[in-house]
Amino acid sequence: MPQTTPELLLSNPWYGKGFFEPNQYKVSIERCNNGYHSCELFLKFIEQRIKIERDYMAELKKWSLTCQKEISRSQDYGTNKSTWSASIVAGEQHFYTHSQIAKDLQENVLDKMTQYRKDNYGKSVLHIKKAKEFEKDFEQAQRSWLKLLQKIDDTKKLYQETKKKLKKFELADKIIQSDTGTSDEQKRKAKDQVDTLKKECTAQESKYKQLIEDMKNQRPNYEKEMTNVLNRTHDFEKKRSNFFKQMFQEYHDALYPNKPDENLAGASQKFLNELKKHNVENDIAWWNKVYGSDTNTQWPEFEELKDSNT
Amino acid sequence: MPQTTPELLLSNPWYGKGFFEPNQYKVSIERCNNGYHSCELFLKFIEQRIKIERDYMAELKKWSLTCQKEISRSQDYGTNKSTWSASIVAGEQHFYTHSQIAKDLQENVLDKMTQYRKDNYGKSVLHIKKAKEFEKDFEQAQRSWLKLLQKIDDTKKLYQETKKKLKKFELADKIIQSDTGTSDEQKRKAKDQVDTLKKECTAQESKYKQLIEDMKNQRPNYEKEMTNVLNRTHDFEKKRSNFFKQMFQEYHDALYPNKPDENLAGASQKFLNELKKHNVENDIAWWNKVYGSDTNTQWPEFEELKDSNT
Repeated sequence: MPQTTPELLLSNPWYGKGFFEPNQYKVSIERCNNGYHSCELFLKFIEQRIKIERDYMAELKKWSLTCQKEISRSQDYGTNKSTWSASIVAGEQHFYTHSQIAKDLQENVLDKMTQYRKDNYGKSVLHIKKAKEFEKDFEQAQRSWLKLLQKIDDTKKLYQETKKKLKKFELADKIIQSDTGTSDEQKRKAKDQVDTLKKECTAQESKYKQLIEDMKNQRPNYEKEMTNVLNRTHDFEKKRSNFFKQMFQEYHDALYPNKPDENLAGASQKFLNELKKHNVENDIAWWNKVYGSDTNTQWPEFEELKDSNT
Repeated sequence: MPQTTPELLLSNPWYGKGFFEPNQYKVSIERCNNGYHSCELFLKFIEQRIKIERDYMAELKKWSLTCQKEISRSQDYGTNKSTWSASIVAGEQHFYTHSQIAKDLQENVLDKMTQYRKDNYGKSVLHIKKAKEFEKDFEQAQRSWLKLLQKIDDTKKLYQETKKKLKKFELADKIIQSDTGTSDEQKRKAKDQVDTLKKECTAQESKYKQLIEDMKNQRPNYEKEMTNVLNRTHDFEKKRSNFFKQMFQEYHDALYPNKPDENLAGASQKFLNELKKHNVENDIAWWNKVYGSDTNTQWPEFEELKDSNT
């Protein structure tokens, strides 16, 4: 089952209420806005990751260039020197692996997600267009229902106030009727007031009950209209979630390429071939021929005075 | 054949001379010093590479922590949220691959090379001890030879000067003997001088030739002693070159591990399993139950005035 921390549920002002209650539809507007923010967050993470890969690549290139320059300037020689240089070239090849990762993340994730966000949400300065659109539809579907609820509430208040008044008058009438000091005229007046209030109360009760009936009749249509809009927000959210699922796969494939890294394999083999040519004996023999005991030494010989010196 | 650029050969003051000539052995002292500097350069390159790997690792960790924190704080929900979080964990796993590279470079290359340099060269503030040791041995082997060369040179100069003088006097004598205005006494004196110089010259020539003979006799021994020291510098250099070859292999194996990266394979599979659990319908159904049309809406009902309100 989906996991959402209890904290997030409890701190959510929409939690624990019924969807068809007034303004509660706003939770689905918020979900639409959240979807947009998830796209933004996703893009931010991928951008940062691409930067990490590119920084690594730049460092590798810089390292390789500096190393090769210093090796070529060094007084090392022979196959040791050429193998050394080849080792740096081999060590640089990880550049291409990470360059492929960065490229795939860019093209298959970042660019696609950017396009999705643009095509589906439509951000203006103040709001996300798609969310605003849903909000208008919900408002429209709920407008007459809100009026009816207001009417019911007004009628309920009126009825309950009249009823309260009636109870007070009935109590007063009871006391008056049993009071020997009160005139018949006063007694009749009190009874008339009670009768008038009773009639009023009955009429209001009837109106109140009628509105509740009206509501019951309108409810299926109201629920249908609200659910229609809600289902469209569901579809919109399903589309996003499916797209995220697709992006998770693309992201995985960028970081975990399915095919073996042929460049790395090739670079490894190339270096190992170079390493096989590393020949200590040949290097020393070459050095000995150029600088060592295999050079031609000029030995002193008997030198007669040359004629030019006379 | 070993490659060394012509520039490096031509700009080298030792190039084009014979090894047994005075002080020419210093080229092999320089080779010893260069070997030390190659070790230092090698260490520097590996240190830099390890730093690049470790920087990349640190960036990955930081990225992963921030992303996971932001995802958990986000209003996303359900399997989309849990898959998203898992995707970051999977994306962080490259940390361990590069951590292994850094560890292998450190332990199998850097530490071993540092130890090799320490064990073989012995650096003091002013010089590399091993080079100084070879230099003393060469000086010792060349000392008496240098004295002999000096003696030959001195004798040669003396002989050639006397010979030059003799030629002048012979020419003068020739003129005097044929000059009718010169007395017999003068003629005899001139002849005596020539005779004396001739004797002197013969003696010096003989000494000079004898020294050349001495040199020829001593040469095999001199060459043997010099070659002995040279061979020891060859052995020292061969040891270094063999060690470098070994380090090139270790370096290759650190950057191109032979065994498949089990951690990465595992992380990939783990994430793909998580991705399979991604379920849009379930997520929406959950949401609809908590916030949507499957919640319990409180509908208005007819409410009688409660007794407490009277």
